[in-house]
Amino acid sequence: MNNMFMDVLIEKIKTCNNPTVAGLDPKIEFVPSFIIQDNYRKYGETLKGASEAILEFNTTIIDNIYDIVPAVKPQLAYYESFGVEGMKTFKKTVEYAHSKGLIVIADGKRNDIGSTSEAYSNAFIGETRIGIESFVPAFDADALTVNPYLGIDGIKPFIDDCEKHSKGIFVLVKTSNPSSGQLQDLVLDVGMKVYERVADLVVEWGENLIGSYGYSSVGAVVGATWPSQAAALRQRMPNAFFLVPGYGAQGGTSKDIAVNFNEDGLGAIVNASRSLMCAYKSTIWKDQFSEFDFGKACRAEAIRMRDDINSAIGG
Amino acid sequence: MNNMFMDVLIEKIKTCNNPTVAGLDPKIEFVPSFIIQDNYRKYGETLKGASEAILEFNTTIIDNIYDIVPAVKPQLAYYESFGVEGMKTFKKTVEYAHSKGLIVIADGKRNDIGSTSEAYSNAFIGETRIGIESFVPAFDADALTVNPYLGIDGIKPFIDDCEKHSKGIFVLVKTSNPSSGQLQDLVLDVGMKVYERVADLVVEWGENLIGSYGYSSVGAVVGATWPSQAAALRQRMPNAFFLVPGYGAQGGTSKDIAVNFNEDGLGAIVNASRSLMCAYKSTIWKDQFSEFDFGKACRAEAIRMRDDINSAIGG
Repeated sequence: MNNMFMDVLIEKIKTCNNPTVAGLDPKIEFVPSFIIQDNYRKYGETLKGASEAILEFNTTIIDNIYDIVPAVKPQLAYYESFGVEGMKTFKKTVEYAHSKGLIVIADGKRNDIGSTSEAYSNAFIGETRIGIESFVPAFDADALTVNPYLGIDGIKPFIDDCEKHSKGIFVLVKTSNPSSGQLQDLVLDVGMKVYERVADLVVEWGENLIGSYGYSSVGAVVGATWPSQAAALRQRMPNAFFLVPGYGAQGGTSKDIAVNFNEDGLGAIVNASRSLMCAYKSTIWKDQFSEFDFGKACRAEAIRMRDDINSAIGG
Repeated sequence: MNNMFMDVLIEKIKTCNNPTVAGLDPKIEFVPSFIIQDNYRKYGETLKGASEAILEFNTTIIDNIYDIVPAVKPQLAYYESFGVEGMKTFKKTVEYAHSKGLIVIADGKRNDIGSTSEAYSNAFIGETRIGIESFVPAFDADALTVNPYLGIDGIKPFIDDCEKHSKGIFVLVKTSNPSSGQLQDLVLDVGMKVYERVADLVVEWGENLIGSYGYSSVGAVVGATWPSQAAALRQRMPNAFFLVPGYGAQGGTSKDIAVNFNEDGLGAIVNASRSLMCAYKSTIWKDQFSEFDFGKACRAEAIRMRDDINSAIGG
């Protein structure tokens, strides 16, 4: 058996002493204007120009945080919104993050029927068949977020690639958005809620991929905005590693987040996107850093976030 | 108010007298070997070579069916599995289909929290902000399939673009795959199943986008493999237009499919992918057409499928 993805992630978290992941969700308005202007001058005010600006933004952010955070989480929607050029920037961002030793969690919430999920899995965490015996990775991330609505058929191809290529997935269980309860909190006839049933399925789906720290490479997405539900899920899914979005800009505090961790100090990785990418514009940092120093502002915020979360877990 | 997407689709279905959509889900093994060899010779046995072969395959298929079928449905997973080059082929396929007058339904099952769904919507059915007042479409399809697991927050941005840009969405309700019931068929405390609750939400989400034929531009995905559930959904969601996958290779017959239509002969569009793309290899057509005539085989199968479904609806 190869190394398990979740073991690799945990070791990197331990090395950095930092259970956080930097979300790379680049809206064009997050990018400092001097980068935009420079790239629009070179490439035009086009999808290409915007995508080049975002690549420069991302690589500078990575340069400033790769020794502090264990992982980055590019959100595919933002890259897709810039078309083919945006996907080129996605690919180059993955490659650049890898060159700096970062783990890459592609956030795509992908899902479909089995044969189609296999193609998604090939795209992001596996390899695509080109010839009779030739297979090529396409985007080559280390993990992918996936949606459970279609049941095990749509999840199995991802699990197979997790096993074969030492990759990971995080399955949506309880999401951070205000309307997450519209489906996820519906109460079943057996008493539990839909997301609790999904949690039980995720435990089942991950049971053959539990690594040496006791966590499966089939993880769960559990939003920081629902701390009491997260605390119950922590008990319900002891071997599931949680990817926790919603810290910072979405309103989750470090105290809200502490419930996602186990007594071993492990069990979760907390994402922040806007608060890191836009640190240079934030009330905390804007007096100290100009837009030209957005990378340093991001670093300062990454350190503040690390310490904030570590103190909440430690306490 | 602009034209409603669903009115445009219905008019095209009426013009063609054909309520079917051709799925363009190109695995490399679907493409005739002479096309593959030619493109590998030009571009190498690479993601680029494969993507160019698929583009040639797709455009030939489109050339052979554009006057028969109203729409094509490229499945994003397959294009993504060939990386950036695959997405280039996706974009060119959309453009080529449009140049031949076809409606394009991008099958991506996209979903996320509100701000991220907005980026997905921008990517596929809206426009992405580039400058302060400049917005550019990225992939520019006419409709997109979406996943409801995150509730209205994750759907609203798509609905807004449907209204603003005369586009459509099809929300997953009851999918065609064997394990679709694992979540979708769970019984709620109020007696109905999860997918029935989703159906009710889809009706609610679509009520402001009902066009002149009485169908909303917020449609539903209802698998051909569950005819009794589809019949009940047809009653439950009278104003929802159904996108029906699962005909042919997945086992749904024209008789199974007839229940998805209303008495007006409208209400559904039936997808087939493999049976059209691989018609030249099928038991029905392989004696009549060589791989060099895969386009003609696809046309013959598209006509057979049209007539099969029309006779089932008519009868």
